[in-house]
Order: sequence, then structure tokens, then C-alpha cells
Amino acid sequence: MRILTKDISKIAGTGSGEPVELAGWVHRIRDMGGITFVVLRDRSGLVQLVFTKKPLDPQGGALTLESIITVKGRVAVNEKAPGGAEVQAESFECLSRAVPDLPFQVNGDISKVGLETILDNRILSLRNPKINAIFKVQAVIIEAFSAYLRSKDFTEIKTSKLVWGGTEGGTELFEVEYFDRKVCLAQSPQFYKEALVASGMERVFEVAPAYRAEKHDTPRHLNEYVSMDVELGFIESEKDLIDLERGLLAHIFEELGRKNSAELALWNAAAPDPGAPEKAPVICYEDAVKLASDMSVKAGGGRLFDINPEAERFLCEWSAREHGSELVFVNEFPRRYRPFYTFPSDANRTMSFDALFKGLEITTGGKRLHSYQAFVETLPRFGLKLEDMQNYAALLQSGCPPHGGFAIGCERLTARILGLANVKEASLFPRDRRRVEP
Amino acid sequence: MRILTKDISKIAGTGSGEPVELAGWVHRIRDMGGITFVVLRDRSGLVQLVFTKKPLDPQGGALTLESIITVKGRVAVNEKAPGGAEVQAESFECLSRAVPDLPFQVNGDISKVGLETILDNRILSLRNPKINAIFKVQAVIIEAFSAYLRSKDFTEIKTSKLVWGGTEGGTELFEVEYFDRKVCLAQSPQFYKEALVASGMERVFEVAPAYRAEKHDTPRHLNEYVSMDVELGFIESEKDLIDLERGLLAHIFEELGRKNSAELALWNAAAPDPGAPEKAPVICYEDAVKLASDMSVKAGGGRLFDINPEAERFLCEWSAREHGSELVFVNEFPRRYRPFYTFPSDANRTMSFDALFKGLEITTGGKRLHSYQAFVETLPRFGLKLEDMQNYAALLQSGCPPHGGFAIGCERLTARILGLANVKEASLFPRDRRRVEP
Repeated sequence: MRILTKDISKIAGTGSGEPVELAGWVHRIRDMGGITFVVLRDRSGLVQLVFTKKPLDPQGGALTLESIITVKGRVAVNEKAPGGAEVQAESFECLSRAVPDLPFQVNGDISKVGLETILDNRILSLRNPKINAIFKVQAVIIEAFSAYLRSKDFTEIKTSKLVWGGTEGGTELFEVEYFDRKVCLAQSPQFYKEALVASGMERVFEVAPAYRAEKHDTPRHLNEYVSMDVELGFIESEKDLIDLERGLLAHIFEELGRKNSAELALWNAAAPDPGAPEKAPVICYEDAVKLASDMSVKAGGGRLFDINPEAERFLCEWSAREHGSELVFVNEFPRRYRPFYTFPSDANRTMSFDALFKGLEITTGGKRLHSYQAFVETLPRFGLKLEDMQNYAALLQSGCPPHGGFAIGCERLTARILGLANVKEASLFPRDRRRVEP
Repeated sequence: MRILTKDISKIAGTGSGEPVELAGWVHRIRDMGGITFVVLRDRSGLVQLVFTKKPLDPQGGALTLESIITVKGRVAVNEKAPGGAEVQAESFECLSRAVPDLPFQVNGDISKVGLETILDNRILSLRNPKINAIFKVQAVIIEAFSAYLRSKDFTEIKTSKLVWGGTEGGTELFEVEYFDRKVCLAQSPQFYKEALVASGMERVFEVAPAYRAEKHDTPRHLNEYVSMDVELGFIESEKDLIDLERGLLAHIFEELGRKNSAELALWNAAAPDPGAPEKAPVICYEDAVKLASDMSVKAGGGRLFDINPEAERFLCEWSAREHGSELVFVNEFPRRYRPFYTFPSDANRTMSFDALFKGLEITTGGKRLHSYQAFVETLPRFGLKLEDMQNYAALLQSGCPPHGGFAIGCERLTARILGLANVKEASLFPRDRRRVEP
């Protein structure tokens, strides 16, 4: 029966000679003449195999990197081997032979490889243990996000990604040929999550793809991304949402620390401090712009008039220095910067917020309008017409609790935790203007 | 501080008079002259409120059904009230007034309402407790599916839904205008889950939308559905997959029994027996067709030549009668009925299977080709050209373990567990040829 490579050093702890069976990928081959060292990779890690007879593939050729083999042998303690143990191979079988001229070196140092090469060769680059680790971390982020919300009585929802129009405004939508008409790919589950809060579920979450037809290509944007959405009823203001996100991020950070130290270490990263979200300051938009602008001027740069990427970095630096947290919440965004459905706190400001983490916006959220009257009065300010908003109108006319929510960009959070330079690195199969394969 | 309606009977157990605060939807109003009974609905259930003064909305009008209110009052034991307790209202506030002429009666008996009416009024029909219950059950199905697979070392993946072409063959694809070219909406994550097994993750799962541009409208089909996908490496045959699905379904059934008895009871359903998957027989395609055909003839119908919907019902009846399980696995499908990537067991048959549950196919799966040579030889049989299959070719040339997987249709499983006549009932916002709203 097959065991995993991670179990070898445990077995070696009880002495050499135990017979074992392993299966996996040929990660590295060192032919020393009489003896051949093969590093075998499986889902749990790496182990060294020692062949006293040159291992050949079924056609009698040399074993190739990335081929799939099963091997039977005996565990041997060897302090010089990685993990302090190796397996003396007695027999092996090649289940699938990889071609010898693979276009990407899986066992190489990816810090020397450009992102385009990594993405062009995605099927192979995902095999690199450091790159693979990104997605083990991401899986735990999604798991912890979902588990925390379920523990708070949230219901997981799965809403349609084919919609009749955008709730965020009409631009940046991909069109789909849907039988004899055109529909759009959803930019967010905004309308649906509000409708489901109002359906009586009160608290809902969804982890699903979202689409933005943005033409520009930046290290911060993806045309298709995984949106981790939250919405809940009976809130007072955006402060309730900020509190929820504090608890949510703390749980995610805790779970990463518990489950992903090995993967994080490959990126010289550690799980963020679960205490950081509690310590994160809340600063209003106006003050945040002023603070970032002052920091920019002090650093020899120009004044800032908005929370642009540079300001996001300054604000996280400030928060880390002054509050011991690389997370900062900015609230009270001006109405002109927020979608029509945002709940105003006064004539110009809104009950909305962003979360900035390690220099990048990872969350946008806010309280939403729940009054039909306010909705009708707001539409013209945003150039929207009531007749185009009939579903929203029906929702608000049917009895709708005060509510709000937020969305965390899954790839952005993953990227900031690992310190990835480009959010595309945190997408299994990223889509940008030029890339839809593989 | 607000409490939930489900807590009222508990509080009443310790005696009357306790002050409480509730919030929710006005589910029902009975004006008895001097006294008004209002049934309040929240995410946890219903409770009766007793008003000695007629409750009015902020404009002084009569309180309307589905309006959102908060209420303060005292718990009173009342054996005649549902749950044995009610709340004597002392003050209340209307947070959002529903219009009096709502197009759908939320508190009505939905067994008398047609599906089109239910779906046309989805924002309101989802508020009906019986309809809402469908999606609480569905959320637990997704949670249990994910938890079971994580416990078996599977990694959750999120793959792109924008693809360059179909892996199942070229028809039934929706086209997306993607900047200056056309791409397709993924019919399944087939290629990606195989690539991720081969990436070293070995065991992956995904719960995500899948798209089929099928023109016909049946009670079994959705144009957008939630696919619960599984794929794993180092299997021998489809029998390993069947065993995995047995354990997976048993866990889902167990969790439903533990968490959803109330929701299931609304549909006169109970959680399926967690022992049923273990007892489910495996019958090969040829025998299954013969058996179903014989049953059809015996029932006064015609012969059957395929596993059509009628045959699916016959086979589940047979399994229930002979094996005490409404689940049956059919394996060894002919090659002509399966996609090119299916692993053949001989010249005409494949290592593939379907799972039929309570008369409906809920799963399709199988072992896949992992040999490049077999892949190249297979393509012409399916009218496919190697030059159109370069990503698949690269995957199989890079070293690929023997592997396989399956997908469970989330809406289909939900529908069969609850006994819903149409799979659309189990989709929050179903999409069909005519329906893309709301």
C-alpha cells in the first residue's frame, strides 16, 4: 500500500529497513555512475530514492524528469539526505513518461523566471513546489473564510453569473451570446446577495468568480477573479462590517498559521498575526488622503489627492508603525466614489469602507440603501433611470432590512500574505486581455 | 439586544415576563379588533406577536405583510400559540415598509402555485419558508461535500470559467465577447482538474458554476448549474471513484440528518439513510439496459435501448427493492457514449460510471486517459484533431498519473433529496432559454 513521502522520516525514526511503497513525480535525478539518486515528489513533499541499478523507462530509455513512477524499497536513515532519511529502491515502475524536453524546468529556481514564462507554461509551473504552495495557502483562506462565516450563522449561496446588466454601472462588462440575446457576466453578486439577505436568510456568503472587462493590465487586476462575498442584515453602519471583517481575517490568519507554515516558509513569509485585525485603525477617507499626502511630500514625492496605489502603501506603512498592524480600514468615502446603492451618512459621505492590507486594497464594502424612497431619489445623481432598475426597485419595495456587506478579493489577499508582486501569480489560470489559455 | 425567534420557546420554558427584542419580517397579520396577532419571521423561524394596540407603519397606515420591524416585548407562555409561546409587544418600529400589493403571497401555500410564477417572482418566492428551506439544505450539501473531501486530503481549487474551447466536444457552448476575440463559458472544469491532479496536488475539488447551451427545456436541465467536481490521481479503475462517492454521499446524508430535519420536514422528506451508499449496487451498462427494458415491458411499456430518464427510474426502483438503496451505480458505459478522455476497459467499454439516485442521474465520472499515446490514437475516433488539443497534449506529455474523477450536479442532488419535481426549483436564480432575470 502506498504511503506519502512525508511519512518516511517518521518511519525512519523507528529504524531502517522498513519496506515501503511510494508514488509520485520524478523531481530530480543525479546519476553518480554506479548509483542514481532520484528525488520523488508527491502531494506531501519530497524524498530521496537511491537506485543501485540505473532506473530506465519502459522503452529502455533514461528516466525523465516529471515522469510518474511507483517505487518499492526500504527506508534508510541517512543524515545527509533531506529530511534525514531516504528510500533504497528495490523495484520501480514508470506509469507515465514525460518528454525529455519540457518547456519549463519544474525543479528550478522560479525567482529567476519571468511571470509571462510562468503563466505561458502554467501546466508545468504549477508543479513547482513554491508555486504549488500558493494554492494550498489559497485553499485554506477559502476554507477558513467559509468556516468562520458558517459559525456565525451565515448561509452559503451560489448565485447566477449570467445577468441582464451590471449593478455597478454599465461599463466593464463582458457580453455573452445567450441564445438569441445578449447577457452579461456578473461583476459581483451584489444584487443577489442583497436579495438573499432580504429573503430571510439575513446572513449570506459566496465564493465565486467575478468578471471585470477592464482593458488595462496592472499587477493589481484580473479580468476574472475569485470574490469572497459577505452580506448581512440588521446592521447599524459600516462599523458592524469592519468588526465582522476583523474577526474573519483573524480566523483566516490563525488557520494559516496552524496549517500552512511550510508553504509560507517557501515564500519567506509567515502567517499574519491573528491579533493584527483587532489592532487595525479605522481612518476616515479625508484624513487618510491628507495623511498619505503628507507622507508622500515628506518622502520627496508630490501631493496625493486620492487613495491611489501609492497612498495605499503609505497608509499601511503608517498603520504598521503607529498601530502595529499592516491592516487599515478607511471609511466614509465620498458619495462620488461609491456605487448608487451605498448608504449615505451625510450629503457627501457614505457608510462605506475599504480594507488595505500590506499596501493593497483587499476589501470594499459598506452599508446599502434599504429605503425605496432614498433609492428613487439617488438614481438621478448617478445618471441611472428607474425603468432600468426594476429588479432593485422590486427588492426595496418588498420590505428590506438595513443591511450591508463586503467582498474580499481572494487572489489579492493570497498575494499580500505571500508577498507576491503580481496578483496574477495567485490565480490558478489567470485571465487578462491577452491570456485565455491554458 | 436582538434575539432570534427560535429562542422564544426556550425562554418561555423558564416562565413568562422576560423582556426581549426581536427583528424580522411581518409574515402574517390577524386583526381581531381590540387585539392584533402578527407572526414575525426571522432567519431562525416564526413567532407570534400580540399587539393590544393596532400596529401602524410610520405614515400611520396599516402594517403591511413583509415589512421589516423590530419589536420589544415580553415572552408569554401560550399553549395555543405556535411553539407554545408568544411575545406581548410593548413597542415596535417599522424599518422598511413593503408595498401592500406584492405580486406574490409569501405566506401562502406554494403547492398551489405554478413554477413559472414562483420563478418570475423569485425575490419574493425565496422568502416562503418552504422555498427558503431548499437552499439551507443545499448549503449543507455543499459544506458536507467540501468538508469530507478536505478530510481526505483534497485541495479546493478555483479554476477559470472562460476557456478557449470545450473539452466535451464543440457544441452546447456559450460564447463570450472577450475584448477582440471570442471565448467560451466552461462546460466543466475537466481539463483544469486533470491538470491540477497532475500538478502534484493529486486530489482536488471545486464547487463552481458550469454552463451548457442546451436549447431544450426539461425538468432535469439547467443552462447554468453548480457542479461539485472531484478528481484524484493514482486510481486503478472507476471502482475507486465509486467507493469515494459512497463515502462522500454517506457523509452528506449524515450531515443533512444532523442539521436539516426541520427543512426536510417542510417537504415531507427525511435525510437519506447514510447506509444507503454502501448498499448501492454496481451494475454494468449492458445489464442495466436489459434490466430496465425488462421492467418497462413488464409494466406494459416498450423496450428500452438506452439509460433514458425512464430507465433511470426503473433502475432506482429495482435497487430500492433488491438492495434497500435508492442509489445505484452503473458502470462500463460504451465508448461511444463517453467523451474522448475516458479510459477504455476494452475495445468497446470504458472505466466510467453514472450514479442514479431516486430516479435521476446525479453523477457522471470515470477514469481518464493518462497516456499520450492512447490519447493520440483516440482522437480520430471522436473526430478530434491533435492540433486543436494542444493543451491536453502538453498535459499528457508532461508526466500524468493514472487518475479519474466525477461531478455531482448540486441542484439535482438537492432536488432528489427534497423530492422536487423540477431541478430549477433547486437553483436560486435559474437560467433557461427564456429566463435571465432576476
